[in-house]
Amino acid sequence: MATLGIDLGGTKIALGVLEGGRLIQRGRITTPREGAEAVLQAMIAAANEALAEAGAPVTAVGVGTPGPIDYERGVVVFAPNIARFRDVPLRARLEEALQRPVALENDANAAALAEHHLGAARGAASSFFVTVSTGIGGGLVADGRVWRGAYGQAGEFGHLTVLPGGPVCGCGNAGCLEAVASGRALARDASYAYAEPLDTPELFARWRAGEAKAARIVEAAADYLGQALADAQKLWDPEVVVVGGGVALGGGEVWLERVRRAFERHAAGWRTAPLLPARLGEDAGVIGAALAARALAPEGP
Amino acid sequence: MATLGIDLGGTKIALGVLEGGRLIQRGRITTPREGAEAVLQAMIAAANEALAEAGAPVTAVGVGTPGPIDYERGVVVFAPNIARFRDVPLRARLEEALQRPVALENDANAAALAEHHLGAARGAASSFFVTVSTGIGGGLVADGRVWRGAYGQAGEFGHLTVLPGGPVCGCGNAGCLEAVASGRALARDASYAYAEPLDTPELFARWRAGEAKAARIVEAAADYLGQALADAQKLWDPEVVVVGGGVALGGGEVWLERVRRAFERHAAGWRTAPLLPARLGEDAGVIGAALAARALAPEGP
Repeated sequence: MATLGIDLGGTKIALGVLEGGRLIQRGRITTPREGAEAVLQAMIAAANEALAEAGAPVTAVGVGTPGPIDYERGVVVFAPNIARFRDVPLRARLEEALQRPVALENDANAAALAEHHLGAARGAASSFFVTVSTGIGGGLVADGRVWRGAYGQAGEFGHLTVLPGGPVCGCGNAGCLEAVASGRALARDASYAYAEPLDTPELFARWRAGEAKAARIVEAAADYLGQALADAQKLWDPEVVVVGGGVALGGGEVWLERVRRAFERHAAGWRTAPLLPARLGEDAGVIGAALAARALAPEGP
Repeated sequence: MATLGIDLGGTKIALGVLEGGRLIQRGRITTPREGAEAVLQAMIAAANEALAEAGAPVTAVGVGTPGPIDYERGVVVFAPNIARFRDVPLRARLEEALQRPVALENDANAAALAEHHLGAARGAASSFFVTVSTGIGGGLVADGRVWRGAYGQAGEFGHLTVLPGGPVCGCGNAGCLEAVASGRALARDASYAYAEPLDTPELFARWRAGEAKAARIVEAAADYLGQALADAQKLWDPEVVVVGGGVALGGGEVWLERVRRAFERHAAGWRTAPLLPARLGEDAGVIGAALAARALAPEGP
């Protein structure tokens, strides 16, 4: 059985056909900037092409999308970073156009599912996936399935309050993890401290070169991430924690070790799950979307 | 079908026979102070008495205990507040003495189970229970069952870091919710601020009388609790939140409303679960232990 996974992002739409544990086909297009209808048409065209060229019968389609989803109605409430993408009945539109059952899943949840079944968390009974990139997201997987929460909000790890009274976050709260440890927060703090525009790769380069100011910024963010991971351990207690995303990749093993030390310090009296780097990289979104579709296929999950 | 619930506490051991949704018998003894063997003997005697006097056949026994449990081996790793209670093979000892299957459950988890099935969270698909008393504990229930986590640590809500660099907690971490918002923390802060020993009831009395210093202390603690509840909402996303325990009871509706406002402020961009006062009071522990035992009974849960 093969399923098609679609990862809808702000700059690109990635597609892949998953059979067993392997992507047997991949595709990628640029996300149109003309609003929801253009995005839908581009997705449908790319998906039809992928279905036609897939070397195996594709029984179902899964889509990972950023932002909140109304799972019951199959509607994307809104997608941050995609212009005019609000209240889009994505499931119904795709089911009609592709003539197959369609599953929607939050993109961080989809990546969590992928790392759980086919990536770093393989074999664990439960796992917590964190992606640290422009923003910070997360996903909880237990008993093989994503735990979405009662209101579809579970895994909104980037919005845990780690510094009460800290920088105001896009969500409206102050001191969110995302507001002190995401790529955007790092770039904000670096640009302020150096009084010139500085992006995350340049900040990491200066940190590696041993600059004290860069180290203060990078390490403070790693410490807050460790603190929030300790919160997740005490509250939900996953068997393993997987960390992915551009900032994690940029920080590498030295950064991850710093996160690990903060994690263990804040979880002083408790056991901490192994902290593992993500394995599937950019494929996680597509693979996870394809895995989400398996639950819909006639043969079951 | 009836089951016996036992709630092992630092000062008392409460017992109750649960049939359907009702306690048909109750008992209570003082917790012996002479160590694990004395506690065990007292529990067995009280349980045998309860079993003999129960008006219905009792098929299984559940015990709620404070502190960490090795669920696989049925061993209480240690019980805070009970002298010399370490590595006690409680399940095996009770099964032998009572001739019935025995289930162990963390006491906060047991109370969470009780409020979920028979208390304030009745009818919800998932619920998060928080008890604010001398310490702060929690329990997660979904699909009718306690989520214990991979290492039996789930629901350790009192140890989320809410104030990095704040007061050092008994667990070794700094700025835990418990270290700024529990009954012990309130008494510590009140005694310091007033330069005389002050307990929680007296602090609440001064708060109600309109004393500014008392209000500062009580309200700051309520705000931290709301902040941590917002973390739980974003990470695990329960359908309802139930708040119980002595401090919650002492604070009453005015205190809970203050917690609710902080909860909503910190969960700015998200939906918040209804925040409900616990309904079962001191019975929650016994009822939850008896509910945990139902899973063992021949007729199933």
